Amino acid sequence: MKATLMYGAHDVRVEEVPDARLVEPTDALVRVTHACICGSDLWPYNSMPASTVGNRMGHEFAGIVEDAGRDVRRVKKGDFVVAPFLWSDGTCEFCQQGLQSSCLHGGRWGGTELDGGQGEAVRVPLADGTLVALPVGPDHAVMPSLLTLSDVMGTGHHAARCARVRPGVIAAVVGDGAVGICGVIAARRLGAERIIMLGSHPDRTTLARAFGATDVVSERGDEAIERVKEMTGGLGAHSVLECVGHAEAVRTALHIARAGGTVGRVGVPQEPTTPDVQTTFFANVTIAGGPAPVRAYMHELMPDILEGRIEPGRVFDRVTTIDGVPDGYRAMNDREAIKVMITF
Amino acid sequence: MKATLMYGAHDVRVEEVPDARLVEPTDALVRVTHACICGSDLWPYNSMPASTVGNRMGHEFAGIVEDAGRDVRRVKKGDFVVAPFLWSDGTCEFCQQGLQSSCLHGGRWGGTELDGGQGEAVRVPLADGTLVALPVGPDHAVMPSLLTLSDVMGTGHHAARCARVRPGVIAAVVGDGAVGICGVIAARRLGAERIIMLGSHPDRTTLARAFGATDVVSERGDEAIERVKEMTGGLGAHSVLECVGHAEAVRTALHIARAGGTVGRVGVPQEPTTPDVQTTFFANVTIAGGPAPVRAYMHELMPDILEGRIEPGRVFDRVTTIDGVPDGYRAMNDREAIKVMITF
Repeated sequence: MKATLMYGAHDVRVEEVPDARLVEPTDALVRVTHACICGSDLWPYNSMPASTVGNRMGHEFAGIVEDAGRDVRRVKKGDFVVAPFLWSDGTCEFCQQGLQSSCLHGGRWGGTELDGGQGEAVRVPLADGTLVALPVGPDHAVMPSLLTLSDVMGTGHHAARCARVRPGVIAAVVGDGAVGICGVIAARRLGAERIIMLGSHPDRTTLARAFGATDVVSERGDEAIERVKEMTGGLGAHSVLECVGHAEAVRTALHIARAGGTVGRVGVPQEPTTPDVQTTFFANVTIAGGPAPVRAYMHELMPDILEGRIEPGRVFDRVTTIDGVPDGYRAMNDREAIKVMITF
Repeated sequence: MKATLMYGAHDVRVEEVPDARLVEPTDALVRVTHACICGSDLWPYNSMPASTVGNRMGHEFAGIVEDAGRDVRRVKKGDFVVAPFLWSDGTCEFCQQGLQSSCLHGGRWGGTELDGGQGEAVRVPLADGTLVALPVGPDHAVMPSLLTLSDVMGTGHHAARCARVRPGVIAAVVGDGAVGICGVIAARRLGAERIIMLGSHPDRTTLARAFGATDVVSERGDEAIERVKEMTGGLGAHSVLECVGHAEAVRTALHIARAGGTVGRVGVPQEPTTPDVQTTFFANVTIAGGPAPVRAYMHELMPDILEGRIEPGRVFDRVTTIDGVPDGYRAMNDREAIKVMITF
């Protein structure tokens, strides 16, 4: 079968690999119909040391269950399913609390041992805890939006939840990537009265406005902090969604939270950041967040997608086949595309 | 009148100063009956550069209202009152939300401009927002416990609340000072099933056990982290109360929180700390806390003191008069005393 491998920075290849197959009785075999390239795939795309062993790529996919191990109970052959960006058992202490991202027996897709989502088929470990069956088929119009449940929509929702967005608050979203844009959707869905998007790419901030951003701040660093303070009576935002991970973005997020406010961070930290004591400790600013347990949010968010209340699938502004994946990486890295969907 | 001034490290003097008096119509004049020395007073006690101008000391006190400005409505001459460790207007956006520690018009006691609590009388700015009348007199047996509402009990409660202590959780308290010990009281009061005290002073950990600590870890640093992990099935505590502020204590607190858990920090940070990404971001550990809005907690905690359900006043293991204050600092700094009460 064909799959995507990364051999180093800017070196993404689509190659023939051994067919995915069941190994454990708790596995399912999924024939991928839709996948995507993630903003987080761009970190290794810009930094991975060259290697003779490729890493299998992709952690967002949907597809048809082609086979299931004898212990799989909750999905069956023929089901159309979506997978979260981490697999999880669904039964451990953390999964039961809805923190599947800390599953005691779960893990990541791809790498050198497991299949990745950017390929024709995937062996899904712990299928019962991982996969969620979809009530529509792969050709349904809402399919792009359902695909975002695998990562970006759930991650934006996690940022909003961790940032304690609630009716009436002023929310600020740092980062205009697909996660930040989904963060706007989530903040609006949870009732934010005002949503300030910090981002500088007009195509992205335009989409953010369409999803409910009431203000756009295109400055960066101290100027951005100053602007948000001005817009909020000098106090800052109640809820800040940090959707980037770079030190400057984290610092901006911490500084634009008002006293007693909360920063929900989902951007994978790229450098250590030292919160400034004056702006966090003395102001009682809470710092929450981490990798989103998107599996926990799928059932909550799905009805809003199926009934058309939210349309996160609009973050996909380019579609490619598997052979176009390397160029998809390039296009996202060059900011030509917000997010690339792969269809099979 | 007599008051306590600090002129530099290890240089605390009791001197005659001008009598406290009303200045603004919103002031009250309080004749102090009880005050205390705070663990946080030991920071300047060990580090203040020598100065010819002394800093007035003390931010925890109770006393009798001797006079009140014409705009004061909520306390009157003759009332016995307790003061929080910060003064606040009670009306601004933050005060109304119960975050008086971020009052837009409030401030700190003492320094070079205002009276401190470790003196015979105090001009109290914004008396209506600051003072709380007590339903008992200064000679009542629960008075030491009521005095802790000015700081340590409210601060321990803030740590527990920020750490999201709730029925059934495993709580861990880093630091066996008066705040840590009050954190144990607060964690038990909020329903923690298990309370692990990290502290190494036998007199303090004994008191913590009397207040509900179920386990004591006397190791420090990595060994302490290891011990707490062992005691919690490898997972760590749900709620961690950081009651010290030194980098090592903060690091320990962050490392003993389980995935999805929360660190409530009230120890004033003495050095910047860089949360390790692996133990905070990837585990979705929340970091909350800051200076406690103890004014907000006085009415909640007072009934439990008056009815004998909690006895935070037991943290006072030494009582002195104003003239004994310099030796009280020394005794607390030498760990001879947990906390010193001053009576007038």
